[in-house]
Amino acid sequence: MATQAAFLARLPQLALLQQPGGGDRATAPVRVRVPGAVVSQGTKAVAVAAKATARRGVRCQASLIEPDGGRLVDLVAPEEGGRRAALRREAAALPHRVRLGRVDKEWVHVLSEGWASPLRGFMREAEFLQALHFNAIRGEDGRMVNMSVPIVLALGDAQRRAIQADGATRVALVDERDRPIAILSDCTGIARTVVALYWDISITVYVGRYQSIRCINTLFPSFSSIEIYKHNKEERIARTWGTTAPGLPYADEAITNAGDWLIGGDLEVIEPIKYNDGLDQYRLSPAQLREEFARRNADAVFAFQLRNPVHNGHALLMTDTRRRLLEMGYKNPVLLLHPLGGFTKADDVPLSWRMKQHEKVLEAGVLNPESTVVAIFPSPMHYAGPTEVQWHAKARINAGANFYIVGRDPAGMGHPAEKRDLYDADHGKKVLSMAPGLERLNILPFKVAAYDTKQKKMDFFDPSRKDDFLFISGTKMRTLAKNRESPPDGFMCPGGWKVLVEYYDSLVPSEGSSKLREPVAA
Amino acid sequence: MATQAAFLARLPQLALLQQPGGGDRATAPVRVRVPGAVVSQGTKAVAVAAKATARRGVRCQASLIEPDGGRLVDLVAPEEGGRRAALRREAAALPHRVRLGRVDKEWVHVLSEGWASPLRGFMREAEFLQALHFNAIRGEDGRMVNMSVPIVLALGDAQRRAIQADGATRVALVDERDRPIAILSDCTGIARTVVALYWDISITVYVGRYQSIRCINTLFPSFSSIEIYKHNKEERIARTWGTTAPGLPYADEAITNAGDWLIGGDLEVIEPIKYNDGLDQYRLSPAQLREEFARRNADAVFAFQLRNPVHNGHALLMTDTRRRLLEMGYKNPVLLLHPLGGFTKADDVPLSWRMKQHEKVLEAGVLNPESTVVAIFPSPMHYAGPTEVQWHAKARINAGANFYIVGRDPAGMGHPAEKRDLYDADHGKKVLSMAPGLERLNILPFKVAAYDTKQKKMDFFDPSRKDDFLFISGTKMRTLAKNRESPPDGFMCPGGWKVLVEYYDSLVPSEGSSKLREPVAA
Repeated sequence: MATQAAFLARLPQLALLQQPGGGDRATAPVRVRVPGAVVSQGTKAVAVAAKATARRGVRCQASLIEPDGGRLVDLVAPEEGGRRAALRREAAALPHRVRLGRVDKEWVHVLSEGWASPLRGFMREAEFLQALHFNAIRGEDGRMVNMSVPIVLALGDAQRRAIQADGATRVALVDERDRPIAILSDCTGIARTVVALYWDISITVYVGRYQSIRCINTLFPSFSSIEIYKHNKEERIARTWGTTAPGLPYADEAITNAGDWLIGGDLEVIEPIKYNDGLDQYRLSPAQLREEFARRNADAVFAFQLRNPVHNGHALLMTDTRRRLLEMGYKNPVLLLHPLGGFTKADDVPLSWRMKQHEKVLEAGVLNPESTVVAIFPSPMHYAGPTEVQWHAKARINAGANFYIVGRDPAGMGHPAEKRDLYDADHGKKVLSMAPGLERLNILPFKVAAYDTKQKKMDFFDPSRKDDFLFISGTKMRTLAKNRESPPDGFMCPGGWKVLVEYYDSLVPSEGSSKLREPVAA
Repeated sequence: MATQAAFLARLPQLALLQQPGGGDRATAPVRVRVPGAVVSQGTKAVAVAAKATARRGVRCQASLIEPDGGRLVDLVAPEEGGRRAALRREAAALPHRVRLGRVDKEWVHVLSEGWASPLRGFMREAEFLQALHFNAIRGEDGRMVNMSVPIVLALGDAQRRAIQADGATRVALVDERDRPIAILSDCTGIARTVVALYWDISITVYVGRYQSIRCINTLFPSFSSIEIYKHNKEERIARTWGTTAPGLPYADEAITNAGDWLIGGDLEVIEPIKYNDGLDQYRLSPAQLREEFARRNADAVFAFQLRNPVHNGHALLMTDTRRRLLEMGYKNPVLLLHPLGGFTKADDVPLSWRMKQHEKVLEAGVLNPESTVVAIFPSPMHYAGPTEVQWHAKARINAGANFYIVGRDPAGMGHPAEKRDLYDADHGKKVLSMAPGLERLNILPFKVAAYDTKQKKMDFFDPSRKDDFLFISGTKMRTLAKNRESPPDGFMCPGGWKVLVEYYDSLVPSEGSSKLREPVAA
């Protein structure tokens, strides 16, 4: 924790959460209570209004970008009033319990904090189909919100039959040791009723006796009950990744061997999801991030998603973005440096090492802690390129970001079966720029940064003297670090590089082989 | 032509087009000239305003549903003014000529008449990506129009390099005998400029020096020039069909062996596309259909897409829909019975036989010719289920239909590699009901009709006495006809059934095999 402490000391927003003995309490989502806070657009004051109590969620009235659906979803049971204990008791007694895998639990985390607002639980079929076909879902107000990856929970056939035979309306979700995490249920809010009515009207007016009742049941059974529907894995994979080639990391981890059914419904999560890996204090919820941006009087928030170590090219880009935003007239643009913390493929650098590396970058003054918030994005990684980059951007809207930096081949990887990149390197930014539901987000595509051998530093690539530039890919960087070779001066701060080398040193070659052991994904 | 003549005699709208010696002239798109026609909403009078001359297109001011983008696209060069001859000469002299396959030519037909309005040519990359990812395209007014299948033209690598090396801006499209069909070019209208400006503003304001120029070139090169981009077949197939299994009929016909590049650009089509197969008079353009609906004073148009023979279950449904629309208060709902006329898989009944069968159905009085318009929809068939049904519906909006009947498993087929249906039978109507850009269209899902063995007729399935009903699938129907067996009385009018039996009789078993020769798809 020594290095973490140093890191935190540099980040005012985290110091708050690092109080000794804070444990669960310190890292629990901050319940923002500023009743009646008035937002002054003129002074760019930022405030977050009181949590609405009638419905679980946080209403944000601020100069920060509004969350999708207008209200930040919060599915964690309140500490007060004994609700958590009651849920825990109920979950222990429920006859149907679905065991969550690692990725499932990460999705419960994501959903619980409202990263996927306005989703209030695992997708029902109408939401699943919209995500697959349109990368967007029609919200309760009739507008499209972006939602490009399915957030679903798989179920085996035996369990499906048991739940359906019982007509169960509440199902416990438990972890690998059978500890209850959440209850999945039919919806209790009034919002769903409104939606059901909306569809009712729009269909029955024209349909007449053509199943005016059955329509609701057939098309939108989702809005009033838990729902179990077929998990067509091939179709899900094809439409999400644009390939069905075996070897997609997320599919291998969470789809191929999963159940043939999906269960959708609203979630009530018993308590905030924790990992107890020494990194929980970095896992700020969207509400916490919004509070932090408000505290800093941010009038623009620009998000940088990453799952790799930060080199000076990244840093240049982030620094330059801030400078440009200042030139545009913003007074205090704040960077959200937001490494992905969920499932990653085996050859990516694990989260804990990446966090150490990011810390060194901040220590070295490469990024300014005053205008930088470092936090962990709890989503698992799909490596689904243009489809996934929309999710990465959409989730950051919910955390308050109104600018999103997008680079070459975001969320891309090599084709699992062919010797080529899976996606066209430009498709990510193109798709992102055109995506329904992301119109409010300002997309910042950026120029490629490369190592300028003349200036001996990372700089934006200048095609007029292209021979002066050296491109150091992620693979090249990892190979150098594995072999304890040094990159050119100015590629990465020495402290950050040292962390990378240490990480690869920590990997013990497997017996009888000179090949590096595959690291456990963080 | 005898049977066709009888058919036409029953259909007033077609009699007009069947004048002897009409040939090309009789079947050319009707240029609607009703300058300044005023629409009276009160009397539900229907009129089509004069064709806008500044830009090729037909502006429809009518109580009929407005075409996507507000204006029906018309890409056929006008007869007057020598434009066709000039284009023909130019095409003959152009150095670059792309030869159209059968499906390509069908798409030129589709595009030329505005079925895909507001598309004005083969998709450029921005349109292609939006179709693949969102099943919808942002129109020039910023609104989403539905567009679920890519309409693209493939190109080989050698031709790609030659066109790019020349910097060609105009390319001739020719048929299998090298006769010029159309010219593909950069855009000539002012609309694109407006779009380019729109994007320019929306990007450069925020992007600053981050490639404010390159953005336009990178993200939206499409709006000013022809564009050649990669044809990632695997991704296209996966995202369109939700599978990459070999054996998809459209992929086998038009993708797998096509070029590795796609060329997009605006089209100017030299003259109306004709097939000279005795069926051209049924190929009414959207403008012609709108004119016909106006002539009949239709105040509602309900479209029925089909690629199979019509049985009495279909007829019941169409008749019942009209009755219901009358009950809703419409005075004159008109049915558009709209068989698909483009590429179909080998074991479907060919178009010419289906048209004969439909004629018998009308002759037998099963459908009322007074309130029925029969025409051919020129699109090729994808068999892409929930993705394709959106295209089928969207195209009918452009032809003036504001109601769309959707059945079980629309545009579906068996999985090419597994023993199951490729799509969930309910997904088509669900996806259609939620699709972006189709909000204006009234979707009419319908109950399953089956043969009621008690009443000895086709009727809506009644689950309370399910044992009385007999389901006769398309496969079962074809097998009966192949074997010259009769279906139960009341399943199909005898004249229609006879056509089917004749069709199967016409198929000569191939040498040395008792298997039926595969019919040539019509």
